[in-house]
Amino acid sequence: MTSKKYVYFFGEGKKEMKKLLGGKGANLSEMTNIGLPVPPGFTISTEVCNLYYDLGERWPEGLDDQIEENLKKLEEKMQMSFSDKDNPLLVSVRSGAAVSMPGMMDTVLNLGLNDTSVRGLIVKTGNERFGWDAYRRFVQMFGDVVMSVEHDRFEKALQAKKDSREVKFDTELSGQDLKELVEDYKNIIKDAKGKSFPEDPREQLRMSIDAVFGSWDNKRAQAYRNLHDIPHNIGTAVNVQTMVFGNMGQTSGTGVAFTRDPSTGENVFYGEYLINAQGEDVVAGTRTPQPIAKLEEEMPENYELLMDIRNKLEDHYRDIQDIEFTIQEGKLYMLQTRTGKRTAAAALQIAVDMVNNDFIDKKTAITRIEPQMLDQLLHKQLDKDAKDKAQMLTKGLPASPGAALGTVVFNADDAVEEAKSGKVILVRTETSPEDIQGMAVAQGILTARGGMTSHAAVVARGMGKCCVAGAEEIKVFENKQYFQVKDKQIKKGDWITLDGSTGEIFIGKIPVVDPEVNENMETLMSWVNDYKKLGIRANADTPNDSQVARDFGAEGIGLCRTEHMFFEGDRIKSIRKMIVSSNEKERREALMELLPIQRKDFYEIFKVMKDLPVTIRLLDPPLHEFLPTEDDDIEEIAKEMGMSFDDLKSTIISLHEMNPMLGHRGCRLSITYPEIAEMQARAIFEAAADLTKEGYDVQPEVMVPLVGSLMEIKILREKIVSVADEVMGEKDQKFNYKVGTMIEVPRACLIADKIAKEAEFFSFGTNDLTQMAYGFSRDDSGKFLPDYIEQGILGRDPFATLDIGGVGQLIKMGLEKGRASRKDLKVGICGEHGGDPKSIDFCHEIGLDYVSASPYRVPVARLAAAQAAIIREESEKE
Amino acid sequence: MTSKKYVYFFGEGKKEMKKLLGGKGANLSEMTNIGLPVPPGFTISTEVCNLYYDLGERWPEGLDDQIEENLKKLEEKMQMSFSDKDNPLLVSVRSGAAVSMPGMMDTVLNLGLNDTSVRGLIVKTGNERFGWDAYRRFVQMFGDVVMSVEHDRFEKALQAKKDSREVKFDTELSGQDLKELVEDYKNIIKDAKGKSFPEDPREQLRMSIDAVFGSWDNKRAQAYRNLHDIPHNIGTAVNVQTMVFGNMGQTSGTGVAFTRDPSTGENVFYGEYLINAQGEDVVAGTRTPQPIAKLEEEMPENYELLMDIRNKLEDHYRDIQDIEFTIQEGKLYMLQTRTGKRTAAAALQIAVDMVNNDFIDKKTAITRIEPQMLDQLLHKQLDKDAKDKAQMLTKGLPASPGAALGTVVFNADDAVEEAKSGKVILVRTETSPEDIQGMAVAQGILTARGGMTSHAAVVARGMGKCCVAGAEEIKVFENKQYFQVKDKQIKKGDWITLDGSTGEIFIGKIPVVDPEVNENMETLMSWVNDYKKLGIRANADTPNDSQVARDFGAEGIGLCRTEHMFFEGDRIKSIRKMIVSSNEKERREALMELLPIQRKDFYEIFKVMKDLPVTIRLLDPPLHEFLPTEDDDIEEIAKEMGMSFDDLKSTIISLHEMNPMLGHRGCRLSITYPEIAEMQARAIFEAAADLTKEGYDVQPEVMVPLVGSLMEIKILREKIVSVADEVMGEKDQKFNYKVGTMIEVPRACLIADKIAKEAEFFSFGTNDLTQMAYGFSRDDSGKFLPDYIEQGILGRDPFATLDIGGVGQLIKMGLEKGRASRKDLKVGICGEHGGDPKSIDFCHEIGLDYVSASPYRVPVARLAAAQAAIIREESEKE
Repeated sequence: MTSKKYVYFFGEGKKEMKKLLGGKGANLSEMTNIGLPVPPGFTISTEVCNLYYDLGERWPEGLDDQIEENLKKLEEKMQMSFSDKDNPLLVSVRSGAAVSMPGMMDTVLNLGLNDTSVRGLIVKTGNERFGWDAYRRFVQMFGDVVMSVEHDRFEKALQAKKDSREVKFDTELSGQDLKELVEDYKNIIKDAKGKSFPEDPREQLRMSIDAVFGSWDNKRAQAYRNLHDIPHNIGTAVNVQTMVFGNMGQTSGTGVAFTRDPSTGENVFYGEYLINAQGEDVVAGTRTPQPIAKLEEEMPENYELLMDIRNKLEDHYRDIQDIEFTIQEGKLYMLQTRTGKRTAAAALQIAVDMVNNDFIDKKTAITRIEPQMLDQLLHKQLDKDAKDKAQMLTKGLPASPGAALGTVVFNADDAVEEAKSGKVILVRTETSPEDIQGMAVAQGILTARGGMTSHAAVVARGMGKCCVAGAEEIKVFENKQYFQVKDKQIKKGDWITLDGSTGEIFIGKIPVVDPEVNENMETLMSWVNDYKKLGIRANADTPNDSQVARDFGAEGIGLCRTEHMFFEGDRIKSIRKMIVSSNEKERREALMELLPIQRKDFYEIFKVMKDLPVTIRLLDPPLHEFLPTEDDDIEEIAKEMGMSFDDLKSTIISLHEMNPMLGHRGCRLSITYPEIAEMQARAIFEAAADLTKEGYDVQPEVMVPLVGSLMEIKILREKIVSVADEVMGEKDQKFNYKVGTMIEVPRACLIADKIAKEAEFFSFGTNDLTQMAYGFSRDDSGKFLPDYIEQGILGRDPFATLDIGGVGQLIKMGLEKGRASRKDLKVGICGEHGGDPKSIDFCHEIGLDYVSASPYRVPVARLAAAQAAIIREESEKE
Repeated sequence: MTSKKYVYFFGEGKKEMKKLLGGKGANLSEMTNIGLPVPPGFTISTEVCNLYYDLGERWPEGLDDQIEENLKKLEEKMQMSFSDKDNPLLVSVRSGAAVSMPGMMDTVLNLGLNDTSVRGLIVKTGNERFGWDAYRRFVQMFGDVVMSVEHDRFEKALQAKKDSREVKFDTELSGQDLKELVEDYKNIIKDAKGKSFPEDPREQLRMSIDAVFGSWDNKRAQAYRNLHDIPHNIGTAVNVQTMVFGNMGQTSGTGVAFTRDPSTGENVFYGEYLINAQGEDVVAGTRTPQPIAKLEEEMPENYELLMDIRNKLEDHYRDIQDIEFTIQEGKLYMLQTRTGKRTAAAALQIAVDMVNNDFIDKKTAITRIEPQMLDQLLHKQLDKDAKDKAQMLTKGLPASPGAALGTVVFNADDAVEEAKSGKVILVRTETSPEDIQGMAVAQGILTARGGMTSHAAVVARGMGKCCVAGAEEIKVFENKQYFQVKDKQIKKGDWITLDGSTGEIFIGKIPVVDPEVNENMETLMSWVNDYKKLGIRANADTPNDSQVARDFGAEGIGLCRTEHMFFEGDRIKSIRKMIVSSNEKERREALMELLPIQRKDFYEIFKVMKDLPVTIRLLDPPLHEFLPTEDDDIEEIAKEMGMSFDDLKSTIISLHEMNPMLGHRGCRLSITYPEIAEMQARAIFEAAADLTKEGYDVQPEVMVPLVGSLMEIKILREKIVSVADEVMGEKDQKFNYKVGTMIEVPRACLIADKIAKEAEFFSFGTNDLTQMAYGFSRDDSGKFLPDYIEQGILGRDPFATLDIGGVGQLIKMGLEKGRASRKDLKVGICGEHGGDPKSIDFCHEIGLDYVSASPYRVPVARLAAAQAAIIREESEKE
């Protein structure tokens, strides 16, 4: 019985076989195939790793034989053999999964050395010190990585040797010293593990392969996979490759390079090298490497060869490559090539340049830019060098990207006051609508509580403003005007710096770099509309936000939150008057004061958006959010309103809710107080009628929030339609409009077929849907979500990236039921997930019509939507 | 083309045709068929009503002809005809749906009278006054009910006539007066409607039929159907029946009767009658009717005939009948028979008696008792007469049945103090676990907030104690020791009375009637186990509750809430110590204090339950529920615990949550603090091991609450199993146990297949599932749920009766997915719906293994489960 092919000699694979051979192995085969000088070797496939675990950590039958065969082939090819006393074969063993994955086993170099072959190496190189040093390094690496002996013990032995020789550097140790050290190391291994360092190279190899497999499932690797949503069953390959040495004298060397500049994307060869050194020396930073251009002087032939390889690789891979090479006694070897990591600016430069040179097509260019990267270009960033040197105070959630520095203030009034003469950071336990003015003038916002969809996070993203939310280590003492992290107190007026892209918080000032206009980005973004299928709308509440959104290419407004308008200027007074009204008549009077204000808001937003659809959500939050909470404020407001303190306080108390998220809000308000919905519908339609008269073709969409029962939408739709009819009559104008609903309580998904009979569109409110499907309060989950993610219970924050397995299924059900009963039902999402690429991909896949994101996320969303369309189209072809 | 049969002459139908002919029509046909003296007539089927609406309020083709045919038949049979000047045919027109439904059209009597036929009636009866009075009544009824003329206008004209004649009673008006009144009435109609009263009897009939159809869809009828979950498309039938008159002198009369005593169920003929009267006179109460037995003296032949009919009807219907009869000039006519309404005691007496006499079988007997009725027998009730006379103060939700009176107290301490010397009612805005001691000593509990599953409601039901919750009109001022309803203040020490079965609240004392041991109930309950398929468990937290549950026939404990145990005596101190611990070590120490206490709790519960399963839920509520909220208490407790006030206060503040229902609770606590789950598992298993040693065969089931992700149950199951292994080893005892989960967040239903891999049982926590599926906080929904139910948006409170269309679908999905991945998965529900008959029927239908209800609901649940099984089995046979 012949077993399956487990082992691939370099050249038997190709770059498309990443899944089977890992990234490294596939590329080594590919380079071999296209004739580049790769030291021969072979790859044990990822399937073997999986089998190894399936078999209870044992090798599958036949693997032994296949390795032996490939070893023979290697020995023949190199005209060398293991343990040869003159010309011994030495190999490296490296792990290599399909996706790059830190946390797995480090490299083992110089495998094959033992007491016999070390002499062969010395003979071959004519360099005793080199030989013993190579052996010493191997035993140390093997003991540490393969046999799990404490790393520190080897270091101590090395130090002892240096002390006894009264030298400072490893390089000052003689061949004899190193030879003695090999013995010391072997004793350490014996002592620690009760078994000897294996002299047999085949035994060394077997143990190293096991160690690679073992490292696949260590805790760090598991955690990394959880964090990055990498499946646990894809396994790692093992690469066994002939050693070449860059440290065999002045005709040897080693280097790393990028085929282009990874910071700017400029089309120049970019890298560095060291003569007479091994790879680790370049990385270690003990010697300063030379820029790659210098090689042209030092080794013109090899430089030319390298330039040639650079061109070949770019031509072949059609992308920037990150390569490693070694020159052994004048001969150039390629050890690795992989796609080069790059900055956002470089990524755009490279993509656009490659399209201009017909190197890649636009589709490919689009898929090359990680959407999140655009944040780097759209928002302020901390100066990288300064940040690297700074000491982080604590960390919260990266709630809204960008960077900000300013002096600390603890309430909205102080923010407004201090911002007149300087930059401020607003620090709150959690924000509420009362804080909006303060948020608007602050450079950035920091909260101690709340998640990725907390009030602070949502509003800040809408404003395109840096925000770190839910920094749970922070305790805010607003009345005493300081906040505390462990034993540190930060007072009002102290400077702090926030990184909203990472959630980091620093004491003091770190310089901030402004975003620049990036022409490449404009070019790339001009292509995306040709590919994306999803519409991209914006969540915008003001004419200004709407303009920003349009400028970023939004195709409409997917969510206009009317309540955000209520906090500006004197409006809040009318709102409060409405809330404390004791009967419908008083309430209607207060609402009449609001009507012209709301109408003007809508008029201006419609005017900016012209013929694009604008979805307006009726009043959603519980009414108590509009009332003051502190006695001082209550006193003041009671006076303003001509009420007694006791009366206002008792009204506030009676509106208090245990769980406001599950309380009297959304359409429940309009059911109880239909006059609120009537006023809002009237404001919307009067604005629409006025603009229609001016020749605009406005497209208002009235959205009823939090519907969970058929009758809710039925009753409110009838009311809205009747207001529209009235206004059309009064103003003698016809205009288009739609009435639809948010789908945000799980029950709505279950009865979506019924709801669709009354709704012309659905907009999934994924924030609330996530809250209710999980039973996670977005304001409180900061207490346990970090634990959940750390323990791998959740792969990621479901408020940031849609939970496809759970919430996503509800959305799918809602969509299918809805479309089943109304074929042309327009369906989108308007939760914060609308700006998250992974979530957008899901929305594309299930066939939504649009997603809606905060204005500054619109470019990210557009790019992600184009990628989803391109990638899914490609994968269907396969 | 012959049309469908729309009209059925009495005798063409039968009692099984209720759906088509309505209850009244079917029974009139049935009585005709079995030879009882029914005045002839015909029924227009319910289908016609539906067609009428489908056709835009028009008659279907052919209906006219069929009515005409049946009219002819009637005229022939009666030897009378419409508008006959000697012997005119007069008919009544009545609505009659398949289910009794108040709110629809009242009866129209004497139809057929006009200026011609009134003379015929006078000739025939020889009584001019009688003739004109009949005509006068008809015109008034017709004007009011059919032509919608304001009722008051007729009353005014009548009064004017009496005033002009200077008489007080209608009966004092002469024939001439009444004749004039007919003219006045006709003028009123003409004036109000612009058209004349129709003289043509066929026109009168057509209009009356239309009016019946129209009344099907009036607001009152719609609301009634919404409230009682009656479909809107079943329609009403119309019955047209020859008039007979009980007011044609001393040989005439009319009466109503029950075939048995509807209060006690005693097998005696029970009813009353009036000589020379029409039906409405018996009801009106202007003359005092005679007991039916008196008829034996006054009209022995008719009495004998009636007794005969009574026996025939009972023999035929096999149930107590509620009949109406009229005697016209010595001849007895049956006008109606229907199933008689009866008290709980009567229902049981009748059912048991009929089984004993082989009148019905046990299955039938079981289906005859409305499960909710058992509450009347298990709990105290208000004295009915006294209650009828009392003035209701306000109304809340009927949160826990029974009745209670006592003096008002506003906190638990006062309750404990005052209860030593008298009866108290605990009045709170809402209760929390801190109030449990006070609730235990109170006669009843009244809260201003919270729904049917609020803390107060759940705990009170568990205690079998009367509770009215969510009485939103009440404002409680605890610090000032009074509560207010509108302008009434009720102070500490004032007496109030609660009716927990209706939610009514009264000022002062209303006598309360104790429940009696009911032997019939015991007999009936001894039959149910033979039929029910569902297991019935109890939600019980103490040995005492467990004993009550067992005595009521519970087959296990479905939910033992460990946290309820934490408030007794000094335990709360250890809990608080645990919560304020700043590290794991301190927390473990505090937990060690709790271990022996919890172990003892479980030991005693297991001992009561013997070999029945006991499902214990791990700690569920957010920790802050165990901490004090008032500064005074914080001060005191800080002192007790040796902490500073500031430290304790800041711990409490840091534990505060915006939406605790969606916060850090359930298994999230055990994930963050695994030592809590470990301690609880240890307490459970040590108790199990100790009892195993004593020879018991205990069946503990450890239930992990609020699971929403696979990893939560996986991690906690492993922990629980490892504790079980440890305890088995330490105690050298093997015992059975299961590990399962509550399914209460919607996401758990969506991934139930995965969860079932790790869980041996599911228990649907329908309270939380309802909260999250609807997004209704059980504590806050009192603000809008009443509005929702009143407006017909919701048919009923989803916290009281399972929302089958939404939440039910989640349960079904969870069940199916769960059983698909684990065949023998045990599935039950333990929300408050476990005691609700409609919900129990659904649980039976979808195939759950058991429901769990509060101990005092166990008999209700057992009966409902038996009914579900019997009724569904019957309907499958059909």
